[in-house]
Amino acid sequence: MADEKQPASKNITSLDIQAKELGIGGRLSPETDENLYKKRMQKRKDIQSKRLQVRKTKKGLLIVFTGNGKGKTTASLGMALRTIGHGHKVAIIQFIKGGWTTGEEKALKNLSSNISWHALGEGFTWETQDRVRDEVLVKEAWHVAKKFIKDESYKLIILDEINIATKLGYLSPEEIITFVKSLDNRKNHIVLTGRGASESIINQADLVTEMKLIRHPFKEQGIKAQACVEF
Amino acid sequence: MADEKQPASKNITSLDIQAKELGIGGRLSPETDENLYKKRMQKRKDIQSKRLQVRKTKKGLLIVFTGNGKGKTTASLGMALRTIGHGHKVAIIQFIKGGWTTGEEKALKNLSSNISWHALGEGFTWETQDRVRDEVLVKEAWHVAKKFIKDESYKLIILDEINIATKLGYLSPEEIITFVKSLDNRKNHIVLTGRGASESIINQADLVTEMKLIRHPFKEQGIKAQACVEF
Repeated sequence: MADEKQPASKNITSLDIQAKELGIGGRLSPETDENLYKKRMQKRKDIQSKRLQVRKTKKGLLIVFTGNGKGKTTASLGMALRTIGHGHKVAIIQFIKGGWTTGEEKALKNLSSNISWHALGEGFTWETQDRVRDEVLVKEAWHVAKKFIKDESYKLIILDEINIATKLGYLSPEEIITFVKSLDNRKNHIVLTGRGASESIINQADLVTEMKLIRHPFKEQGIKAQACVEF
Repeated sequence: MADEKQPASKNITSLDIQAKELGIGGRLSPETDENLYKKRMQKRKDIQSKRLQVRKTKKGLLIVFTGNGKGKTTASLGMALRTIGHGHKVAIIQFIKGGWTTGEEKALKNLSSNISWHALGEGFTWETQDRVRDEVLVKEAWHVAKKFIKDESYKLIILDEINIATKLGYLSPEEIITFVKSLDNRKNHIVLTGRGASESIINQADLVTEMKLIRHPFKEQGIKAQACVEF
């Protein structure tokens, strides 16, 4: 196939376009005949399997969950659960306390001995009221984080609220990037959570999702933080 | 306090503005003296506790995770874990198969008898290639979903990929809204996941987060779907 001589990225783009042109199907599809519908979906299926074939690279990913919406810490918690489900080890390092709370902590601790949990940071700046101590704790958390990232027996390392720590000036994004780049052929995945991820981190990451707030009852309707949703 | 006579929403906004003006602190704060820093943070703390006080409403929330980024299903999985951690029951109804996979399923099934899992939908449209059957399965899933939503012993009901089902025309957003509105004083939280949530659902929801794709290695670098990240 001529396609195979193209650079991977060009091939990928071409397949993406073909997939888009074929569309996704569903009840409102234009076909008046179910066999025609089936035919188009079969074409789409063929494209999908080609799309999977051209994506061959496997590597440790640098993943960022940022933005002012909900789900950053919760999504990383879900990844922890997936990883444990596969029988791998997870390290969670909390740079600022508050994101992971009673519900998750209880559930995860009962769940598996494969989780290594380090709540190193303290509360919000207005709780601690001490920027000198805050910085010391962030540096300590980063020290622990590096240890786990270098330990190949850990498949997933979650650096919870580290983006806040860099935003507050307690740790430089460059320090994180330099360290991650220094590791040859890293196999484990690193997740950085927290709003306000720095541009340099975003540019370096493999997978970045911005959780964007669209509607929020706590802000708009005066609704109380509730168990299971917020903690 | 004069504040107390204001409508809740006005009071909330005023406190939000005061909090913003006080700022969040951190290493780069302007204060040259740690006591001055501590003083500003104490003021912020006072505002924060007022912010919590004015948010008094407690109710069952309608929560939407949408957008083309990562973390929609994973965030709802994290909420399931939180809920179980609090000792409550969770129902998960999958409208399209594929979002929850081996890692999560294994972990959750081992975790707790408090999870009721219903994988009712089949695969992507190009896998099933049968829109008539797809619609029947979606209607069945919605039937099961309603049963759990009406059952007050369930604290959290996750309708996974239901947004896709409505987008494909298999279930109308109005049917969902009418049903949810018909329930008096509902206590449980309902989570709707999937890209392409309809405008009417978004307008009705209490909490909407758009997971927005910023960078994605699978698309841009030809990286393979990997255990713990994708499944």
